[in-house]
Amino acid sequence: PPGRKVLIVYAHQEPKSLNGSLKRVAVEELSKQGCSVTVSDLYAMQFEPRATRNDIVGCLHNSEEFSYGTETWEAYKRGCLSNDLIEEQKKVQEADLLIFQFPLYWFSMPAIMKGWMDRVLVQGFAHEFPNCYDSGLLKNKLALFSFTTGGSKEMYAKGGISGDIRYLLWPIQHGIMHFCGVKVLAPQICFAPEYVSEEKRKEMLIAWAQRLKTLWKEEPINCSPEWYFK
Amino acid sequence: PPGRKVLIVYAHQEPKSLNGSLKRVAVEELSKQGCSVTVSDLYAMQFEPRATRNDIVGCLHNSEEFSYGTETWEAYKRGCLSNDLIEEQKKVQEADLLIFQFPLYWFSMPAIMKGWMDRVLVQGFAHEFPNCYDSGLLKNKLALFSFTTGGSKEMYAKGGISGDIRYLLWPIQHGIMHFCGVKVLAPQICFAPEYVSEEKRKEMLIAWAQRLKTLWKEEPINCSPEWYFK
Repeated sequence: PPGRKVLIVYAHQEPKSLNGSLKRVAVEELSKQGCSVTVSDLYAMQFEPRATRNDIVGCLHNSEEFSYGTETWEAYKRGCLSNDLIEEQKKVQEADLLIFQFPLYWFSMPAIMKGWMDRVLVQGFAHEFPNCYDSGLLKNKLALFSFTTGGSKEMYAKGGISGDIRYLLWPIQHGIMHFCGVKVLAPQICFAPEYVSEEKRKEMLIAWAQRLKTLWKEEPINCSPEWYFK
Repeated sequence: PPGRKVLIVYAHQEPKSLNGSLKRVAVEELSKQGCSVTVSDLYAMQFEPRATRNDIVGCLHNSEEFSYGTETWEAYKRGCLSNDLIEEQKKVQEADLLIFQFPLYWFSMPAIMKGWMDRVLVQGFAHEFPNCYDSGLLKNKLALFSFTTGGSKEMYAKGGISGDIRYLLWPIQHGIMHFCGVKVLAPQICFAPEYVSEEKRKEMLIAWAQRLKTLWKEEPINCSPEWYFK
């Protein structure tokens, strides 16, 4: 609906890829609805995935023994995180919905996107004990993981060789998003697009556009072990 | 035993950290046994985690539409992968055992180590359909994930708020290692070292050194959904 803000965190090297098209479809459809859409195009930004001392501007809290978690927490409170992190945190803060668009790499997100999680969602900003899970600091936001796979739907079925696709969603949806208090919408999964016809790939884009039309009416999933492992 | 080769892939910024100590203990104990031990210290190497066109030296197979999976597969066959990847692949090829030492970041490995998985384990080298899972190209090797957590053992218990720790091992052990044919030894987990006494941390190091003494007699875990989700 008009006024809603969406951040798309996008990780693909090739604009002509299906991931690139899925991202464009989301920008178009959500803009048409009157949403304001921001894209973090991680490869184009050459986003830094490594969690290092460079993420803290100026002096360290403890320069004797570097702890990334402690240092970024302290730096967040003092406003001393590096600019690229402050920029991403602003985008997250303003967003009602986060969409993560990526090709599945090794049962998870590509390293460049994992680095976004590692570096942007710092303690103090996204969570701060005991404010985690249902009381995480990013509550009242929604997230949706939209991704393509190499393996087929049959491989990712319960009893299939790669196991139920939900098994691999646990660390991502529960361990990251739910931990920060973010509610999770059902994932959007395009299975094995490399091995299907151009027409089938078009259908995947149309299905995504269709879903986005009524996305704001969807209820989040019940983020409990039962959803993942039942 | 004498002659066995071990590669330790290590991801911590601080040599004085518990992860740094766990790495040193492994180097010392395994060297004492007569093993030859190599360490890939990812932060010290400033290892590149991003999967980009730079990983292919020279011309692309398809310069119209970049596909990282296809291009690295082709480049592997032509011997045109970037030098840092060739170096890491040599170390993997020679190793009987891979030890991954890292602090758990967001229910998974830090992005710099995920980038090692994304970039080093390319098709043609680590797997090549139908050579995956039990017939993966790295069969006859062992892997062991050794990591520290922020959360306590209680949080990572079945029924605990973060779920059984084994849930998050599925994508790593099954999705990556088993997929490449590597057999997996039980993980070595140090729960919440930041919240325990110096003495308890010493005990964690001693336990690791002790385990390493009889490591070569261990049987791999049964890498099936039952092990993870039973």
